[in-house]
Amino acid sequence: MSEVIEKAKKAKIAKDELVHQTTESKNEALRLIAEALRIKQDDILEANGKDIAAGKEKGLSPSLLDRLALSPKRLNDIADAVLLLADLDDPVGESLETIKKENGLLIEKVRVPLGVVGMIYEARPNVTVDAATLCLKTGNACILRGSSSAINSNKALVGVIQEALGASKLPKDAVQLIEDTSKETAKQLFTLNGYLDVLIPRGGKNLIDMVVRESTVPVLETGAGNCHMFIDESAESEMAEQVVINAKTQRPSVCNAIETVLIHENWPKRYAKELLQKLEKEGVQIKGDEAVCELLPSAVPAEEPDWETEFLAPVVSVKNVRDLDEAIRHIHKYGTRHSEAILTENEGNARFFLTSVDAAAVYHNASTRFTDGFEFGYGAEIGISTQKLHARGPMGLKALTSSKYIIKGNGQIRI
Amino acid sequence: MSEVIEKAKKAKIAKDELVHQTTESKNEALRLIAEALRIKQDDILEANGKDIAAGKEKGLSPSLLDRLALSPKRLNDIADAVLLLADLDDPVGESLETIKKENGLLIEKVRVPLGVVGMIYEARPNVTVDAATLCLKTGNACILRGSSSAINSNKALVGVIQEALGASKLPKDAVQLIEDTSKETAKQLFTLNGYLDVLIPRGGKNLIDMVVRESTVPVLETGAGNCHMFIDESAESEMAEQVVINAKTQRPSVCNAIETVLIHENWPKRYAKELLQKLEKEGVQIKGDEAVCELLPSAVPAEEPDWETEFLAPVVSVKNVRDLDEAIRHIHKYGTRHSEAILTENEGNARFFLTSVDAAAVYHNASTRFTDGFEFGYGAEIGISTQKLHARGPMGLKALTSSKYIIKGNGQIRI
Repeated sequence: MSEVIEKAKKAKIAKDELVHQTTESKNEALRLIAEALRIKQDDILEANGKDIAAGKEKGLSPSLLDRLALSPKRLNDIADAVLLLADLDDPVGESLETIKKENGLLIEKVRVPLGVVGMIYEARPNVTVDAATLCLKTGNACILRGSSSAINSNKALVGVIQEALGASKLPKDAVQLIEDTSKETAKQLFTLNGYLDVLIPRGGKNLIDMVVRESTVPVLETGAGNCHMFIDESAESEMAEQVVINAKTQRPSVCNAIETVLIHENWPKRYAKELLQKLEKEGVQIKGDEAVCELLPSAVPAEEPDWETEFLAPVVSVKNVRDLDEAIRHIHKYGTRHSEAILTENEGNARFFLTSVDAAAVYHNASTRFTDGFEFGYGAEIGISTQKLHARGPMGLKALTSSKYIIKGNGQIRI
Repeated sequence: MSEVIEKAKKAKIAKDELVHQTTESKNEALRLIAEALRIKQDDILEANGKDIAAGKEKGLSPSLLDRLALSPKRLNDIADAVLLLADLDDPVGESLETIKKENGLLIEKVRVPLGVVGMIYEARPNVTVDAATLCLKTGNACILRGSSSAINSNKALVGVIQEALGASKLPKDAVQLIEDTSKETAKQLFTLNGYLDVLIPRGGKNLIDMVVRESTVPVLETGAGNCHMFIDESAESEMAEQVVINAKTQRPSVCNAIETVLIHENWPKRYAKELLQKLEKEGVQIKGDEAVCELLPSAVPAEEPDWETEFLAPVVSVKNVRDLDEAIRHIHKYGTRHSEAILTENEGNARFFLTSVDAAAVYHNASTRFTDGFEFGYGAEIGISTQKLHARGPMGLKALTSSKYIIKGNGQIRI
């Protein structure tokens, strides 16, 4: 039997035990895991050191090595996050709807765990703990398939988690790692219908696209963010400066940072010039259309691919648009339905933009950087969904649950 | 350009108009459609007549021909259903969550249409009107791909719907039919990512399995029902008789009818015998395991495939089980996660069953026949979902919606 099938079978058994666990048992397990992560710090860091050494030998880039690296501080932050998770409300068991029929039948829609969650992800070992504990909090068993470059760290982390589970009321097999990181095991997970209830990819666009394309198991897609800010003709210049600079530069490497600024052609040219110069001063490279390059000679002419690129870097493409309609058309053509914003003093235009633009989050007069599970107060984040089914936008714990109708009677029959 | 791509492009344009429609405009369009279905009755029946004649020539079975056939009464019922739909609450625009941040940012989660819905279905032309109007009510554009055997009826119905839309405020292209019913057009829909927001198959297991397997567009799976009734040792004999007979015989051809009865071996044998004899008297064929065949010599020995078959007919498989655990294991092995029931006077066993059994609807002391959007008071039903993401169990109008975060500020930036 292959490793994947063997662990999938164990996960199914663990799942059946997990539905009977109380919130307190789950939280106790989380606290034991947090404690174990601190106690076993040296073992984990030693294993991580092996991955780092192997990564250097393989010539991984400094940024990849940084994502891979654990430190006492990072491990401590990870353990703290697990403790915070234990304090959050348990979504499982929540009553979503109650229907009392005239014949006395009581129908209740209740929130339940999804079952077995498969997680495919890249590099960062903190995702291992994050995914495992989010699943445990919501009563799900999980099968983790990380990347080969983090295999020693992941083995150590899952070992620690399983040991902690052994001391809790939860089944040890609630969290399992696929240790064979060949492509084959990823592909096996794609078609593990009947075992996996959902597959969640976390990583770059290539990974996510492959999972969406090849998986027959339902997928929770966490997507890329090619986000736009549209400056309408009535936008306040000072607000535009603040918000655009924040949305682009506060943390350029994340999905809710903007990649393109669309400027209404009637917005005063001196405002536009000042804004672009300030962006440059903040170290942002401007890629502009013809009108922008005329206004700002230091700008690089934008090419077609620039409109569809998620730079994730201090680079921004800037385009003049004739009107609101052209802005919306541009967003629908190039956007990834993540976060889109309008800056305007015209309430009608704001309303039209917010209704028209098809995206997980649409903003009026604010930075797109707020699209985030913690900023929204969810206390946890599985990812940001750019799909429309099940969950859209920042996904908190509820995204890891399903529902079930529980119907109680005393002999009712349908007539 | 292929028919599918051409219509998909038009649907996307229609979708962008639909988000601005008011509830009243949508309801007015539905009332115009209901009226047109009555006015154009003769044309529709004539087209349907062609399908029936072609079907007879092709040697379609009487039951398929019956599903295909329209009549003045059936058309009138279809028009009535459209009027009822107009009276239902509009889920679009519902506020699902409001978050007010300390910095003054107002975050609102609002229900919105899914966008463009693709529907692949078999034979019955009533699904054409049903699907189109459910989509319109929820502000979705739809692309319908029916079967070749109903093509004349479907063309006539969609023609009538589009004419009615022409007289309404809604775009005519909100409802479109793919007229080329070759396999190729179905396959094109499977991978129409970027145009279709969801694909809904309605029909037999083969169709649904193929869509789930081959579609890269997100799928709303409406599944088969291999439903079970477990008679625990403490079950009341009279209630068991009533409920089992109802769940099996009230309408054997539907997905929420039971296919297997599991009997606790300690349930008095005379009760079991009486129940099985009554089922036989109601015209139900019994396929039993060894113990059942001993008790009821007229029973046919059940073979392995009988446990996994959705008979959809007056046939039931019956098995003795040692205990609650064996019953649950059997249900998890053979069930389709649709509707599962326990009959027991033991509250602890009931609770354990309701928590353990992984299905869309779980029952204590009632017939499974209630798993139905209308019985649950939803006023409409898109289908019954046996998947766990997005929607589970009977799907009302809300299953055809997504959500979106609308964020309003006055210059807020993230610090």
